[in-house]
Amino acid sequence: MKEWSVYLSGEIHTDWRDQIESGVRKSELPIIFSSPVTIHENSDDCGVEILGEEKDPFWHDHKGAKINAIRTRTLIEQADIVVVRFGEKYKQWNAAFDAGYAAALGKPIITMHEPEHRHALKEVDGAALAVARTADEVVQIFEYVINGHLRGRQNRVAAE
Amino acid sequence: MKEWSVYLSGEIHTDWRDQIESGVRKSELPIIFSSPVTIHENSDDCGVEILGEEKDPFWHDHKGAKINAIRTRTLIEQADIVVVRFGEKYKQWNAAFDAGYAAALGKPIITMHEPEHRHALKEVDGAALAVARTADEVVQIFEYVINGHLRGRQNRVAAE
Amino acid sequence: MKEWSVYLSGEIHTDWRDQIESGVRKSELPIIFSSPVTIHENSDDCGVEILGEEKDPFWHDHKGAKINAIRTRTLIEQADIVVVRFGEKYKQWNAAFDAGYAAALGKPIITMHEPEHRHALKEVDGAALAVARTADEVVQIFEYVINGHLRGRQNRVAAE
Amino acid sequence: MKEWSVYLSGEIHTDWRDQIESGVRKSELPIIFSSPVTIHENSDDCGVEILGEEKDPFWHDHKGAKINAIRTRTLIEQADIVVVRFGEKYKQWNAAFDAGYAAALGKPIITMHEPEHRHALKEVDGAALAVARTADEVVQIFEYVINGHLRGRQNRVAAE
Amino acid sequence: MKEWSVYLSGEIHTDWRDQIESGVRKSELPIIFSSPVTIHENSDDCGVEILGEEKDPFWHDHKGAKINAIRTRTLIEQADIVVVRFGEKYKQWNAAFDAGYAAALGKPIITMHEPEHRHALKEVDGAALAVARTADEVVQIFEYVINGHLRGRQNRVAAE
Amino acid sequence: MKEWSVYLSGEIHTDWRDQIESGVRKSELPIIFSSPVTIHENSDDCGVEILGEEKDPFWHDHKGAKINAIRTRTLIEQADIVVVRFGEKYKQWNAAFDAGYAAALGKPIITMHEPEHRHALKEVDGAALAVARTADEVVQIFEYVINGHLRGRQNRVAAE
Amino acid sequence: MKEWSVYLSGEIHTDWRDQIESGVRKSELPIIFSSPVTIHENSDDCGVEILGEEKDPFWHDHKGAKINAIRTRTLIEQADIVVVRFGEKYKQWNAAFDAGYAAALGKPIITMHEPEHRHALKEVDGAALAVARTADEVVQIFEYVINGHLRGRQNRVAAE
Amino acid sequence: MKEWSVYLSGEIHTDWRDQIESGVRKSELPIIFSSPVTIHENSDDCGVEILGEEKDPFWHDHKGAKINAIRTRTLIEQADIVVVRFGEKYKQWNAAFDAGYAAALGKPIITMHEPEHRHALKEVDGAALAVARTADEVVQIFEYVINGHLRGRQNRVAAE
Repeated sequence: MKEWSVYLSGEIHTDWRDQIESGVRKSELPIIFSSPVTIHENSDDCGVEILGEEKDPFWHDHKGAKINAIRTRTLIEQADIVVVRFGEKYKQWNAAFDAGYAAALGKPIITMHEPEHRHALKEVDGAALAVARTADEVVQIFEYVINGHLRGRQNRVAAE
Repeated sequence: MKEWSVYLSGEIHTDWRDQIESGVRKSELPIIFSSPVTIHENSDDCGVEILGEEKDPFWHDHKGAKINAIRTRTLIEQADIVVVRFGEKYKQWNAAFDAGYAAALGKPIITMHEPEHRHALKEVDGAALAVARTADEVVQIFEYVINGHLRGRQNRVAAE
Repeated sequence: MKEWSVYLSGEIHTDWRDQIESGVRKSELPIIFSSPVTIHENSDDCGVEILGEEKDPFWHDHKGAKINAIRTRTLIEQADIVVVRFGEKYKQWNAAFDAGYAAALGKPIITMHEPEHRHALKEVDGAALAVARTADEVVQIFEYVINGHLRGRQNRVAAE
Repeated sequence: MKEWSVYLSGEIHTDWRDQIESGVRKSELPIIFSSPVTIHENSDDCGVEILGEEKDPFWHDHKGAKINAIRTRTLIEQADIVVVRFGEKYKQWNAAFDAGYAAALGKPIITMHEPEHRHALKEVDGAALAVARTADEVVQIFEYVINGHLRGRQNRVAAE
Repeated sequence: MKEWSVYLSGEIHTDWRDQIESGVRKSELPIIFSSPVTIHENSDDCGVEILGEEKDPFWHDHKGAKINAIRTRTLIEQADIVVVRFGEKYKQWNAAFDAGYAAALGKPIITMHEPEHRHALKEVDGAALAVARTADEVVQIFEYVINGHLRGRQNRVAAE
Repeated sequence: MKEWSVYLSGEIHTDWRDQIESGVRKSELPIIFSSPVTIHENSDDCGVEILGEEKDPFWHDHKGAKINAIRTRTLIEQADIVVVRFGEKYKQWNAAFDAGYAAALGKPIITMHEPEHRHALKEVDGAALAVARTADEVVQIFEYVINGHLRGRQNRVAAE
Repeated sequence: MKEWSVYLSGEIHTDWRDQIESGVRKSELPIIFSSPVTIHENSDDCGVEILGEEKDPFWHDHKGAKINAIRTRTLIEQADIVVVRFGEKYKQWNAAFDAGYAAALGKPIITMHEPEHRHALKEVDGAALAVARTADEVVQIFEYVINGHLRGRQNRVAAE
Repeated sequence: MKEWSVYLSGEIHTDWRDQIESGVRKSELPIIFSSPVTIHENSDDCGVEILGEEKDPFWHDHKGAKINAIRTRTLIEQADIVVVRFGEKYKQWNAAFDAGYAAALGKPIITMHEPEHRHALKEVDGAALAVARTADEVVQIFEYVINGHLRGRQNRVAAE
C-alpha cells in the first residue's frame, strides 16, 4: 500500500500537528509527516548559532531563514499533500509563502483556519483543494482520500 | 524486479477492476493498482460529510470533487500506466478528463470500451497506446509489457 | 499591452464561439482566439482524405483524430486561457479530454455549460477557475481579467 | 533591446506602483508592468457580479479569488521579475502567496517593505534577490539590471 | 494569425524540402520552416574547418556533429511541428534520432517515407501523429491543421 | 548503496545483453537492467495477438509498436543510464529513436558499435557520454562510474 | 528569419565581446547579444550603492551578487546559445558557475579559452558543444550555425 | 524517517569528506553521501584506460570528463542537498560548474571555503543557502536541518 507524505506547514505555537498525527495513528493510516523545525528559538537562531554571529538583525534572520529553507523546500517538494495552518496570532507570511510555493508545484493543498480569516485568506483558499477548520476534519480527509471511508457510512474497503 | 503502478480510471458500476486485478494475480505480475474511490455515495458526499453541509448542490458537488482530486491527481501522477474504462452508462466526463490529464503528463494510456463508442472516443483513443475491449485483453497487455509473454507462444523469459 | 491567447474547446454545433468573439470585439479586448477545426465533416474525414482510405472505421477515425491533435494540442499548449464548452448533445468526451489536458498543463480553465450538467461535470468544474453559463458571462470574465472592469461599476482603468 | 516584464504584486492601497512606473518612465527603461486588479471593490466582487450572487460569504470570496487567479497566475508566470510589496495594513497573505508562487517558478523576486517587517518576512526575504525599502530603490535596481547604470557613477553603456 | 514553425528533419539528397515549401507558398500558409544545414560537405566538415584539423576521423566527425547540434537542437525545441523524412539511401540514423528527440519533447511529428520502410520504421511511425508518403500530403496536412481546409470539399473558413 | 538502473536499447539478434549482464555479475555491481522485449516474433505480433488481427500490415505493425512503447518509454524514463547498441544488420531506426528520446530527457547515453558505423552514427555519438565497441568496455565503464575502479590500477574504494 | 539570442558569459577585462559583436555585424547575422554588467566597479558595488552600506565585506558582496543574478539568470534562461569565455586572470568561478547553470538548462554552450586551460576546464569543455580559442572562431560558428556557411567554401544559401 | 541524499562536490586533495561523514556518523543522521570519483589519477585517465589511448591531450581529457559526467550528473540530480567545497589549490572550475548545475536544478546548495575566497566566490555563495567554513559547521547544518537540533540548546525532538 502506498505511503502518503504529508507536509504540515504554518503555525508552531499550538498543538495542531500533534492532534492530526494522533488522529492518524488511531485510524492507522499509512502517512509519513514532515514539517518545519517547530522549536521556535532554534528556528530563529540556527543561522548565527552554526555559522557565526551577526550584528545586523537583518542578516541574523537571513542566515536562519536560508538554513530553514534547506529543510522546508526539500520536504514540500517531496510531499504528496501540503496542509497549511493559519493560527490566531502573528503575520504568518511564511505559511502563505509555503502555500504559494506548493501551489506552483501543483501539490494538493489543504488549508486549516478559523472562519474569521475567510476574507484575508481567499486567494490561498482559492488555490486549496479543501478548506478545513479543525484537525479532526483534516484527519477525516486523509481517511477518505486514502481509504475511501466516511465515518458513519457503511464502507466497503475501497481499492487503492 | 520493477513493480509497476497502474491507475484504473473510469466506470465504477461494474466489476471490471476486479476482473483485471484477479487476472493479474493469476499471472503473478508485480503490479500495484490504484483507483478513485469506488463507493459511489461516498465519492458524491465526501465534501459535505467532512467539511459541512451546502444548500446549493453546485457547492455540494464542488467540495466533493476537490477532495476526490487530492486522491486522483496524486495517484495518476505517480502511475506508470493509466487504464481508462468507458462503460455503457452516464456521461463519464471524469474518465475523459483523467485521460486528458494523463496524456498531458506523458503517461502511457490504455483505453477499454465497447466498439460502439469508437467514434465518440476517437480523440481519447488517438492519445492511447492501446485500445482494449475486455479486462482480459488488458491483463494480456500487462503480461506482455512486463514479461514479454504472449499466450500460446513459446516464450523464453524476456529480460526486464 | 499584452495580447491574450484563448482556446475555445468543445461543442461545434452551435454559435457560442461567434457570440464570444463578437462580444470581445465590442469590448475591444486584445484577445487572439483559437479553436479546433469546427467544420464537422472535415474534422471527421481529414485523415482518410489526405492520407488514403481505410476500410475499418476505427482506423478511419484514428487517422483523423491524430491529425486534429497536431492542431489542438499545439494551440492548447500555447493558450493563456482555455474555455471548454459542453453543449446539450453528444458524449463530448473530447471536450472533457481537452479540459484534463489543459488542467495538467496548469492552464486557467473556464467551463461553460447549463446547470443540468452540474453533477456530471463536477470533476471538470472542480478543476476550473470559473464556471459560466453564457457566452456573455465569459466575455465579462475577459473584460475583468484583462482590464479590471465590471459592468455597471465605476471603473478607473486598472494598470495591466 | 529586450523588453523586461515586471509583475507588481501586493499592497493596493497606496501609490507605490505609480511611483515605480513614473520613475521607470523618467529613466526610459524598456519595462512592461503588470499587476493584479487594483480596484479593491471590483477585486472583491468580480465573482458574484459576473457569475451570480452567493449567500455564503465563503463562496462569494471563492468565486472572486479564482477569477482573479486567471489574471494573476498568468501574469506572474510570464514575468521576468516579480516585485512584492508589503504595506502597513492588513494580513496581506496574498502577497506572501504570490512570493511563494514566484519562488517555486524560479522567478527573480524583489521584496519592498519597511524594516519593521524584517523578522516576520524573513522567509520571504530569504527567497528574494533584493530587499528594498522604497520605490526609488526598486527603480534603481531596474536601472542597474537593465543598463548597468548606478546613479552618481561614471557609466559607460553596458552591453545588454 | 499564428505563425507556425515547422522543422524539416532528415534526408538531404533530394528536393523534398523545396517541394513542401513551394506547396506551402502556393497555399499561402503562415509557416516558417527550419532545417539542418543541407550542404552535405559543409555539414561534414564544419568542425575541422572552424576549430582545426583532426587526424582521427572519429574526432573529425565528433567536432562537426556537435556544431550541427547547436543548430538542430535549438530549432527542434522551438518548432511547433517536426517533419521527419526517410529517403531511399543511407542509414539515416540522425533522422530517427531527431524523431526520438522530438517525441520526448512532446512535439507533433509527421513522418514521410515510402511504404517499403513500413516495418523498419514502425516505432518511429508509432510516435508520429501522421505518416505521409509525399510532399503534397504533408502540404495538405498543413492546409488542414492551419485552416481546416480539405481540397475538393466546400470549406467555410475555420476560425483559428 | 545506490542501485543503478540501466536500460539496454537496440540490437536483439546477438547476445550483447548477456555479455554485459554476466560481466556486471562478476564485478558484483548494484545494477538493475531493463530492455525492450527481445523475443523478436512476440515484439512483432503483440498488437494483433492481444487486440485482434489486422489485414493491413501497417496497422499490424502500428498496434504492436504502441504496445511496445508502453514498456520502452516507461523504462527509458526511469533509467539512470541508457546503453544503445547498433549491430551489423537491419536499419535499427528504433535504436536511434531511443537514443534521441533519451537525449532529450537528459539521460547519460553510452553507444556501443563497430568503428565502421562511425560516420553514420556521428550525431548519435555526439550526444553520448561514451562510445564503446565491446560489452567488456561497457562493463568497465560501469565499474568506474559506480566504484571508481579501473582494472590494473591500484584502487582504494572510492566513496560513493 | 529567426533572431538568435546569445549570452556572452565570463571575462570582463578584455575586449572579446566587442570582437565577436563586430565580427557578427560584418557577417550581418541576426543575433541579439546579452551579457552580465561589464563595468567592474558597478558590478561589485551595485548592492550597497542602491540598498545601503554594509560593514561586513561578505554582505557587501552578497547584496551585489544577488542583484547581478536578477540580470544574469534571466538572460541565460532566455538565450539560445551561451558562450563562456575564460581569460588569463582571476579565479573566474562565476564563468564556470554560468556554464554549469546553462548546462543544466540544456543550453548549447561554446567555451572560449587558451589551450593552457585545457586540463582545468575539461569538465566544462566536456559539457560544451564547441571549444573555441578565438573570437573569430566563435563568429565562424555563428555563420555556420545560422546560415550554413563555411568561409572558403562554395556556399549555396542553406534554408533556415 | 526520511533518508537524506547529500552530494559532496569539489576538492579531492584533502580529507574534508571524511570529516563530514565521520561527524554525521557520530550524530547518527540518516544521510547517504555521494561524490565524484576521488582517486585523482583514475579520474584523469578513465577515458583512455577503458576506451583506448588518445595522442591529443584534449581528447584524452575529453573522454575522461564525459565518463565522469555519467556519474556526477546522475548523483547531483538525485541529491537532496549539494555541498560544494573550494580548497586552497587549483582552479577548481569543476566545483563551480557543479554549483551552477545544482543551482539551475533548484537544489539547496551549501558552499564550504575559507574567507579569503569570499570575493571570488560571491556569485556562487549568492546562490547557496548556507556558506560554511568548516566540516563541523556542515555537520551542524545537517543536525539542524534533519532533526532541528542546535548544540548547546535544550532540544525537544522536532517532528520530521
